[in-house]
Amino acid sequence: MSKPNLALVGATGAVGTVMISIINARENIWGEIRLIASARSAGKEIVVHGKPHTVVALSDEAFDGIDIAMFDVPDEVSEVWAPIAAAKGVVCVDNSAAFRMNPEVPLVVPEVNPFAAKSRPLGIIANPNCTTLTMMAALGALHSKWTLTELVVSSYQAVSGAGAPGIDQLAAEIAAVGGHSEAGLKSNNVSEILSAAGLKQSDSPWAVPIAMNVIPVAGGLKEGGHTSEELKVRNESRKILGIKDLKVAATCVRVPVQVSHSLAVHATFAKDITADEVRAELEKQPTVVVMDDPANGVFPTPAFVAGQDPTFVGRIRQAEDFPNTIDLFVVGDNLRKGAALNTYEIAELVAQELA
Amino acid sequence: MSKPNLALVGATGAVGTVMISIINARENIWGEIRLIASARSAGKEIVVHGKPHTVVALSDEAFDGIDIAMFDVPDEVSEVWAPIAAAKGVVCVDNSAAFRMNPEVPLVVPEVNPFAAKSRPLGIIANPNCTTLTMMAALGALHSKWTLTELVVSSYQAVSGAGAPGIDQLAAEIAAVGGHSEAGLKSNNVSEILSAAGLKQSDSPWAVPIAMNVIPVAGGLKEGGHTSEELKVRNESRKILGIKDLKVAATCVRVPVQVSHSLAVHATFAKDITADEVRAELEKQPTVVVMDDPANGVFPTPAFVAGQDPTFVGRIRQAEDFPNTIDLFVVGDNLRKGAALNTYEIAELVAQELA
Repeated sequence: MSKPNLALVGATGAVGTVMISIINARENIWGEIRLIASARSAGKEIVVHGKPHTVVALSDEAFDGIDIAMFDVPDEVSEVWAPIAAAKGVVCVDNSAAFRMNPEVPLVVPEVNPFAAKSRPLGIIANPNCTTLTMMAALGALHSKWTLTELVVSSYQAVSGAGAPGIDQLAAEIAAVGGHSEAGLKSNNVSEILSAAGLKQSDSPWAVPIAMNVIPVAGGLKEGGHTSEELKVRNESRKILGIKDLKVAATCVRVPVQVSHSLAVHATFAKDITADEVRAELEKQPTVVVMDDPANGVFPTPAFVAGQDPTFVGRIRQAEDFPNTIDLFVVGDNLRKGAALNTYEIAELVAQELA
Repeated sequence: MSKPNLALVGATGAVGTVMISIINARENIWGEIRLIASARSAGKEIVVHGKPHTVVALSDEAFDGIDIAMFDVPDEVSEVWAPIAAAKGVVCVDNSAAFRMNPEVPLVVPEVNPFAAKSRPLGIIANPNCTTLTMMAALGALHSKWTLTELVVSSYQAVSGAGAPGIDQLAAEIAAVGGHSEAGLKSNNVSEILSAAGLKQSDSPWAVPIAMNVIPVAGGLKEGGHTSEELKVRNESRKILGIKDLKVAATCVRVPVQVSHSLAVHATFAKDITADEVRAELEKQPTVVVMDDPANGVFPTPAFVAGQDPTFVGRIRQAEDFPNTIDLFVVGDNLRKGAALNTYEIAELVAQELA
């Protein structure tokens, strides 16, 4: 076939914007590239590979002639529109939670389970949640060698995981507390400072301040007191790694960081494993960067990782009290590998297959 | 005996300042209260229980007539001066790391092991590290009922854990990024913004920015790639709870929060345990506050907890994949319960004993 035609649904959102920068940075393997968004954004012009592209409104016809469509839209939009596009023969790569746990939809991380992308009875491939994705490249590599059995994970998640409103809220709060005298700041009454600056908590995506605070709830509340985000970490890790009985406990926490999710991971394996072996194995992975010399200030942080494609891993050490267990700290850009980049890499996989 | 005489060594430091507010807020059970600091701070006047007290320089004579001395000074100062005071018959309550793991020095949390304070062959009682202390009141209560066996902990530690320089650094960085346009902020180049604002990384307690970032290293680097802070969490938890073979894995992370440490705790017990039982048991504890209705926005955060005495616990839930295991989120003011308050409570215990 000739070059496949690509559509991007949700071209003007936080992830969509990053997606366009990724499309522009990669080789242009596409015939047409079509930008789709809500009617509100239709008509907007965005430059892709040097040429202005006019955003078109989401509709049945918007998928005419398209081979592969990437969806970066809310769950309920994907739920309706991915099946419509798929019915027209479009391979849909969806970055919402709508289809991730559907047994007829593969959940794909190209480094870990590229083969899964080929079996897509509904014509839909799901992209994992950004928190899960942050650790998959590293854990997939370790699992294939040592067989992962247990995972205890605590997250340090950036506000951009809550989209543009999250980014705006942190920026507004930091501006408000930053405008304060140091003495005022030191009183630590973040709520009072924000309210004095005219910020209303009810305008925030969160119930409490995020500046100079951490919020131990990410996602909606679900059964057992877990959040949707915590259940995604468990269920999606199991599906991607193909370990049905993987034991997972996750605590997802929002931190006042703009971009990049960090995870403290406590991972137990079926086989003997050492920190040195882990370091050597991760250094072999093309999409993983090991930054692990903490005595000399070498460790990954979200501010450093933001804007970069690889997964960064540091603080690799043996949890001596636990057999076959490694503790490590993983950081990844939640808008790139955690969302847009992985979605695009899946689209590239499909393009190769269609070629 | 008449009312005991109390000394506070390190009266002008970050913890010392909080200590004085605690002394002022509690019943005055003391004869004399003597404020001791370095020669540099000697002569300064500080009001205690309504009366000005002149700070005296640390010296042998400064301990004359004192019954109980609280030390909030660096390890090396305690190491020298606590034995000198103890040799004069002063009971020393030390908040440094100098004596914590000494088998002849009890490590005391009044809610957990008050009895240990009575056996002090060196005349020294140690106060635990603030990170460990944050979870001890809650875990001590659970351990006495269900027998703790394993602990996986990730921390979200406030900058004030690094003392006044930590507080100043975060305030300066927040002021610098807060002075920026929202667009500049969104670029997430925290390092560039700080450097443009004239801040030098070499003036910071940390090797990288702390504003809008998290730093996965707290404390110095020790054997096995663990930090001193992580080893303290393990070794001090074992000593306080009296569980020699407690399995502990800790990852200690600094977050851009001024006051209050938070911990994501994954705790395994020897006996059957449910989240409801944990909630009921913690609600009975006089120094623990359960804030656990996340669906309605009720959960502890450091900005809320700062300045308060109790330990706050939320996100209590069963880790269904792990037998007898509970996940919870604990937050405590690292300058109060995590340092000054617990030290003072130990001094009160000793005062009762001497009475």
